[in-house]
Amino acid sequence: MALYQRWRCLRLQGLQACRLHTAVVSTPPRWLAERLGLFEELWAAQVKRLASMAQKEPRTIKISLPGGQKIDAVAWNTTPYQLARQISSTLADTAVAAQVNGEPYDLERPLETDSDLRFLTFDSPEGKAVFWHSSTHVLGAAAEQFLGAVLCRGPSTEYGFYHDFFLGKERTIRGSELPVLERICQELTAAARPFRRLEASRDQLRQLFKNSSSLWRSSGAPETLQRVSGISFPTTELLRVWEAWREEAELRDHRRIGKEQELFFFHELSPGSCFFLPRGTRVYNALVAFIRAEYAHRGFSEVKTPTLFSTKLWEQSGHWEHYQEDMFAVQPPGSDRPPSSQSDDSTRHITDTLALKPMNCPAHCLMFAHRPRSWRELPLRLADFGALHRAEASGGLGGLTRLRCFQQDDAHIFCTTDQLEAEIQSCLDFLRSVYAVLGFSFRLALSTRPSGFLGDPCLWDQAEQVLKQALKEFGEPWDLNSGDGAFYGPKIDVHLHDALGRPHQCGTIQLDFQLPLRFDLQYKGQAGALERPVLIHRAVLGSVERLLGVLAESCGGKWPLWLSPFQVVVIPVGSEQEEYAKEAQQSLRAAGLVSDLDADSGLTLSRRIRRAQLAHYNFQFVVGQKEQSKRTVNIRTRDNRRLGEWDLPEAVQRLVELQNTRVPNAEEIF
Amino acid sequence: MALYQRWRCLRLQGLQACRLHTAVVSTPPRWLAERLGLFEELWAAQVKRLASMAQKEPRTIKISLPGGQKIDAVAWNTTPYQLARQISSTLADTAVAAQVNGEPYDLERPLETDSDLRFLTFDSPEGKAVFWHSSTHVLGAAAEQFLGAVLCRGPSTEYGFYHDFFLGKERTIRGSELPVLERICQELTAAARPFRRLEASRDQLRQLFKNSSSLWRSSGAPETLQRVSGISFPTTELLRVWEAWREEAELRDHRRIGKEQELFFFHELSPGSCFFLPRGTRVYNALVAFIRAEYAHRGFSEVKTPTLFSTKLWEQSGHWEHYQEDMFAVQPPGSDRPPSSQSDDSTRHITDTLALKPMNCPAHCLMFAHRPRSWRELPLRLADFGALHRAEASGGLGGLTRLRCFQQDDAHIFCTTDQLEAEIQSCLDFLRSVYAVLGFSFRLALSTRPSGFLGDPCLWDQAEQVLKQALKEFGEPWDLNSGDGAFYGPKIDVHLHDALGRPHQCGTIQLDFQLPLRFDLQYKGQAGALERPVLIHRAVLGSVERLLGVLAESCGGKWPLWLSPFQVVVIPVGSEQEEYAKEAQQSLRAAGLVSDLDADSGLTLSRRIRRAQLAHYNFQFVVGQKEQSKRTVNIRTRDNRRLGEWDLPEAVQRLVELQNTRVPNAEEIF
Repeated sequence: MALYQRWRCLRLQGLQACRLHTAVVSTPPRWLAERLGLFEELWAAQVKRLASMAQKEPRTIKISLPGGQKIDAVAWNTTPYQLARQISSTLADTAVAAQVNGEPYDLERPLETDSDLRFLTFDSPEGKAVFWHSSTHVLGAAAEQFLGAVLCRGPSTEYGFYHDFFLGKERTIRGSELPVLERICQELTAAARPFRRLEASRDQLRQLFKNSSSLWRSSGAPETLQRVSGISFPTTELLRVWEAWREEAELRDHRRIGKEQELFFFHELSPGSCFFLPRGTRVYNALVAFIRAEYAHRGFSEVKTPTLFSTKLWEQSGHWEHYQEDMFAVQPPGSDRPPSSQSDDSTRHITDTLALKPMNCPAHCLMFAHRPRSWRELPLRLADFGALHRAEASGGLGGLTRLRCFQQDDAHIFCTTDQLEAEIQSCLDFLRSVYAVLGFSFRLALSTRPSGFLGDPCLWDQAEQVLKQALKEFGEPWDLNSGDGAFYGPKIDVHLHDALGRPHQCGTIQLDFQLPLRFDLQYKGQAGALERPVLIHRAVLGSVERLLGVLAESCGGKWPLWLSPFQVVVIPVGSEQEEYAKEAQQSLRAAGLVSDLDADSGLTLSRRIRRAQLAHYNFQFVVGQKEQSKRTVNIRTRDNRRLGEWDLPEAVQRLVELQNTRVPNAEEIF
Repeated sequence: MALYQRWRCLRLQGLQACRLHTAVVSTPPRWLAERLGLFEELWAAQVKRLASMAQKEPRTIKISLPGGQKIDAVAWNTTPYQLARQISSTLADTAVAAQVNGEPYDLERPLETDSDLRFLTFDSPEGKAVFWHSSTHVLGAAAEQFLGAVLCRGPSTEYGFYHDFFLGKERTIRGSELPVLERICQELTAAARPFRRLEASRDQLRQLFKNSSSLWRSSGAPETLQRVSGISFPTTELLRVWEAWREEAELRDHRRIGKEQELFFFHELSPGSCFFLPRGTRVYNALVAFIRAEYAHRGFSEVKTPTLFSTKLWEQSGHWEHYQEDMFAVQPPGSDRPPSSQSDDSTRHITDTLALKPMNCPAHCLMFAHRPRSWRELPLRLADFGALHRAEASGGLGGLTRLRCFQQDDAHIFCTTDQLEAEIQSCLDFLRSVYAVLGFSFRLALSTRPSGFLGDPCLWDQAEQVLKQALKEFGEPWDLNSGDGAFYGPKIDVHLHDALGRPHQCGTIQLDFQLPLRFDLQYKGQAGALERPVLIHRAVLGSVERLLGVLAESCGGKWPLWLSPFQVVVIPVGSEQEEYAKEAQQSLRAAGLVSDLDADSGLTLSRRIRRAQLAHYNFQFVVGQKEQSKRTVNIRTRDNRRLGEWDLPEAVQRLVELQNTRVPNAEEIF
């Protein structure tokens, strides 16, 4: 009961000032006492066992460190933490856990035998995971103790941790309660330190930044849980860095930029679908045009396929079995009327249930199969920007990241196995070119066959070899995710990194041996016999909507010229130049450039220039009396570089060039 | 019974050879005899009455002809046919009916009083209607007499006539029976002539060309009827002209061209939606790009709006009340499961019923209303290529003419009443420019308020005045369809005429006073008070899919260069030139042109050139040894004009120019 007693003491220290919505739990539930009793019991037994083992076998063991260095230790006695201090005090201060022979190990757990030892610090993803896993336990303890919460899941995530708990049907966590919970967590860590994995000398600096609700799925009806998310750091400095980064990220939040720049908005009458305003549509269309231009160079053929298909198609493709819950089914008109008045039903002859397509692949299989195919037609690369609909849960909706309606730069390549390697390589090259233009770095991973894969193992062997070979020749680093492929084929996952270093999964290259079987796709081979093509699903941008959001955040609203919905603003110095300014605007528009006019005579010239720069107009064309008489424009960039006087047609021509070549830095190289 | 007896005689003449699926009706139904009896009775009475009137009042009356000429006639005696013969024998031969004081009049019905007389000939739409109305009666009589049909509707149409009749639940008309019915009709006309409106001396030359089924809607369940369509002509010459035209039209049928040129196809798993193959998508995208370029010049802003909306939106717009039967409603996922396991329903929080948009206007109203608007923003012209879904009856589906899923070059203009005239004028100008490029002539009609119109009559007055004024200033001829407007606003209907002279309704300009009310749209006026904008719905192409079909037929598959999916084929003379031919192909592609390669060594050069011309490739680039060494190409057009040797880059450049200027005759002016 010692631990429990110590917890109870905490209440006496700084918590009187905390105005928690629910009173601190005065009578802890029975199972809390039971659980703590069990812990104390096991802990005592473990301490005893270690002492006994250490006495029985006080032998020297060899511990190998990552660099190859070996150090001696005493079995059942020396802890990783002791060795860390032996190596350097910095390491001892920064290590959050150890890995012994690849297994996670508490820093205070004595080593037992000759081992490979690696220290995990907060720098590494594994170290962060351990640290945040501890943090979520502290959060859970705080919620249990002070809110009477029943705990559910509490994992670490890529950016911190969260804990889900149940507070009763009506009770929710308020935003104003988060600072209180945060203080309790800090007190728990500082005063009680019941989690021995964390060294006493290091503070856990923690921020709880989000509350939301989640759902607990069990066999019965779902219960609404409370989710508190947070992040924690081992040092104040790291916390400060993160806070600055977060501020920057919030400034760059694409929902904020979308609103400020009037790119798009959402409406409750179409939840999960985006309304793209003129400026957002401009960016959207520029992205699509970019991919279209690449398609023309790379031998892809764009096609247009329907949105609504009979569920028979989805049964054939397997989506109806595996994906039905995420699909929107459509009622044939008249089907909701009583069966006696079947007039509409038989007039319309819509007898099949229909569903909105969540993916293009089955439609492309129908297109491949609609007439006999020959080997001469392969590789056949069908690309489609068709609108896809997926019934995402409303909890997951928010901005452009997760939508119910979106378009992809989706393509399916039908090819022979002989063509596979070249096709994969050109898919990778396609990715690299596009991401380079967009200013993204990226990281590749090969996911190989999972247990329960379908299809011929020889085909898998061959395909995995081909993918490895293509990755090797491509020359970029890649990881192997063994067993992480889909059951229908191996794949290459692509994570791009935006300007803030955050990863996003957008592109994909995915082999599929199953769909060609399900649709019985065949082509006449060179020898005359019918053969089955391999199918590659691939996307570079992925969802165009989501990528637009990623780009908005990555450039912080300062769009490169070719994507920019704010390319040029023409500013007449006085009202006498307004006519000429309009002419200049018209020349820009005629050349396909976005140009606005700021003839607001209520503002001084310098205020208008400043306003244009704050709005991130790539260029400002200022026209005064001199410019008007010489038919020139005086150009500035959004970073207030002065490019001086240019002939209007030449300036327009230069902008068109810079737009067409999709340079990232038109303002610098104008 | 005289008529009936004469009908029965017909059987004895040439019909023995006719192998009708159903035997000739030997025992006519009771009501047939009754009806004929009644006719004979009325006819005799009428003849008697005329004779008596003529005897009573043998006075001279004045008949005015259209040119202003007046001729004398005898009341109750002289017939229009007699006057026609008096005027010219040609007129007597060609008149099919008369109009007396604006009323239709049989040529043999005596004139009664001083009248305005006009003769209707087959040349005029009214004359055709009369002629075809007679023809459909003959068809009905044939079907009644020889198939035992129960007659339903039998109207004349724009291109002939049809008759619907009931043959019992199981019986359908077969295509092979049509020639037999046709012969019966001819015999009826020639031998019996029971229809006195037609002069005995003129044959009715008739072709029955289509059989299909239709539905008879009554209060109970619908009955399937048989529909036979036909066309008839007063002279053999006119029939021959029509037959030639029809042959041409069939050759140009867009479904045929779509299949032959691999532009698109249909599939039973998505009825009423088109699959556009790479070449069809090429044409489609070229049309959209054309309209986009016009938008940029004309101050339209493209936007993208969702496809799925809560039915609350459609209730607000009025579509749910008036258009629901034509809309696809969407089941929220999980809604089809039993209410006990509501897990999905509450997870997803999709509680509203959703429906696929059949039109963009309500979405654009939401966009207008999503933030306060100022007069400075007007006119706001929002354009949208969003996919629309309408639950068309399957009987109406066929090719691209009527689809369940299509896109429009749809735009909505929100403006002040002061801006209305200028906006209407620029809409008309937009139409004229686009149709000129597409090679269409067009005809305008103004439809004014119907009885039961909604809204302020003053607003209607003003708007109709504005539309008239705009039409006048536009300078093209237009018709007035009084009372033919929608209840929510007057409109300008646009019928374009394709290369075969057939009319198609594609574009529209429609005012709407109701939607701005329903969505409570407002803007801050110049004086500071809130005002309501006027809404203009307008489209130039209308459904892009349908227009593509019209264009395919209009150009007969010989696409103008800028739309063509067959721009250039590169043909190497021998296999030694294949590499260079590929290079040439690549240069063309890099310039954004469609280019194929025909290196089929199994065919001679001239055969390959012929093949390319039959496939309607606008240009053939032939490359032999000389061309390879000089890096030139030898150019021919699809009409086999030889344009001689050109430097490859110059030829590419010239094609790009011709494409960008969207000329209709690139082959002639290259």
